Amino acid sequence: MKLKMMYSFLNSDINIIEKKLEETIQSDSFLLKQASMHTLQAGGKRIRPIFVLLAGKFGHYDIEVMKDVAVALELIHMASLVHDDVIDDADLRRGQPTVKSKWDNQIAMYTGDFVFALSLELMSNIKDPAAHKILANTIVEVTIGEIQQIKDKYRFNQNFRDYFRRIKRKTALLIAASCQLGAIAAGASESVHKNLYRFGYYVGMSFQITDDILDFTASEAELGKPAGSDLLQGNITAPVLYALENEKIREEIIKVNENTQPNQISEIISLIKQSGAIEKSIALSDLYLDKALAVLEELPTNKAKKTLRDIAKYIGRRKF
Amino acid sequence: MKLKMMYSFLNSDINIIEKKLEETIQSDSFLLKQASMHTLQAGGKRIRPIFVLLAGKFGHYDIEVMKDVAVALELIHMASLVHDDVIDDADLRRGQPTVKSKWDNQIAMYTGDFVFALSLELMSNIKDPAAHKILANTIVEVTIGEIQQIKDKYRFNQNFRDYFRRIKRKTALLIAASCQLGAIAAGASESVHKNLYRFGYYVGMSFQITDDILDFTASEAELGKPAGSDLLQGNITAPVLYALENEKIREEIIKVNENTQPNQISEIISLIKQSGAIEKSIALSDLYLDKALAVLEELPTNKAKKTLRDIAKYIGRRKF
Repeated sequence: MKLKMMYSFLNSDINIIEKKLEETIQSDSFLLKQASMHTLQAGGKRIRPIFVLLAGKFGHYDIEVMKDVAVALELIHMASLVHDDVIDDADLRRGQPTVKSKWDNQIAMYTGDFVFALSLELMSNIKDPAAHKILANTIVEVTIGEIQQIKDKYRFNQNFRDYFRRIKRKTALLIAASCQLGAIAAGASESVHKNLYRFGYYVGMSFQITDDILDFTASEAELGKPAGSDLLQGNITAPVLYALENEKIREEIIKVNENTQPNQISEIISLIKQSGAIEKSIALSDLYLDKALAVLEELPTNKAKKTLRDIAKYIGRRKF
Repeated sequence: MKLKMMYSFLNSDINIIEKKLEETIQSDSFLLKQASMHTLQAGGKRIRPIFVLLAGKFGHYDIEVMKDVAVALELIHMASLVHDDVIDDADLRRGQPTVKSKWDNQIAMYTGDFVFALSLELMSNIKDPAAHKILANTIVEVTIGEIQQIKDKYRFNQNFRDYFRRIKRKTALLIAASCQLGAIAAGASESVHKNLYRFGYYVGMSFQITDDILDFTASEAELGKPAGSDLLQGNITAPVLYALENEKIREEIIKVNENTQPNQISEIISLIKQSGAIEKSIALSDLYLDKALAVLEELPTNKAKKTLRDIAKYIGRRKF
């Protein structure tokens, strides 16, 4: 089943979100509007808004309230991507030129700041102080994760603890917050929004591990950027960590540095793929997915719960 | 009278703010902590925290509440400076190396993001939803101003309207928000916090115009960076706009571009100083200062009001 089919009962609300995203990034600065619109139209799965809406179904769902939270979470995600592309010196994302490549690093920095500020403006419509606290804490962790990622680049003596901490901050916490904030905005009970947080956290971990696997296994056409980009940029992900356990392969991997060229990386990618590292990484992703599904069992049964289960399985096991 | 003498009755609270600033930027990321601490210790007048505290004196002043707002506003200011230094490619600020020069642009971008996120965490302690709305709106405007500043660089056919809009977003709005949020956090009445907002706005305009004058008239030792840096970087400020009205001087000024060297700018600075542009700019700053002082008259009389008057006069007419 395709991802979009899973939440087809939300279609009209998803359209509202998409429209609100476009409305929100309007600005009297033509440059900001262009750069933001460019990022918006580069696509993405809109996973965070979907989680916000589904989580809202566990409370008193009002699309007028939910849409602000859903759009805010997508904008925070967008803003972090724009800043990440500066750090990664990435020219392509999802097959589209990045803001930093189409304009420059400075425009990208301020576009990220602007888009992020817009998200705060939307969130300020939410009255519950707990929502602001959760969001602020999440954003602090995300920014710490971003700087940690720079420090950990090409550092081959790191371990899985470093990796987990990084992907938690990079991905899992914002998905967890999307689930929790959707529930809080809908006035769901504390036990419900805390469970949705845990669900989002586990799904986010599984999602990122899968993403990191796909960087090795998917084609350039599927990824919208060359395969092996992560390792080339020094990002040490689960498949690399597993492959590093093999002494012979380790010797090759640790040669990778800032000056390694794309054509030099293809042999190392083959070695990693042959080492069994991909299979181990899939098992790791599945482990988190199973935890996510177990948490779901503790939530009241409704249509949203079934959809969350379908989506969790999809994004934890997707092929690209 | 020295600035510090004006608010000496707040000394113990200012010390609390300073301590809280240091505490807040602690992080398990050594790099982030270092880069943030570096920015913090580079100094600054702490004008925004002082305005927050003084505004709080018009309501039920509780330092435990006020300190979160005061520290948050200073951190937002710090974060914007760190990002500005990336854009301006500035190596020095207040005589200290900038984060982007001591580390690099990427570290500076994430340090700014981190410091900004910390400010949100502190602000999330404030329950009044109005406070979050005002802050979010302010930050959106600030980010639009930042990108506008890039677009307006070396654009010599701009007018005072462009300049006012830019300094409003760059400086005045955050000072206005500091005054207003201090009052709101202390539960002051709406008429009081709206007047404090207006006061802060006018003071902020006067403050920035004075800053822009000092870039021409103060010495390198006083500025902590070479004089004429603004024009060299393409920032068109009040003195430049007045000087552009003189046809002869205009011909020289419009030659300034990205490739102009520091030694080439000194003659143009002399021309601008001789043109009467500095005197006109001082009159402009005074105009805003007078408006600020007039708004003050509408506020209840107390010690804080007298101090706000002293500080307004000081920062509107300071020599460096």
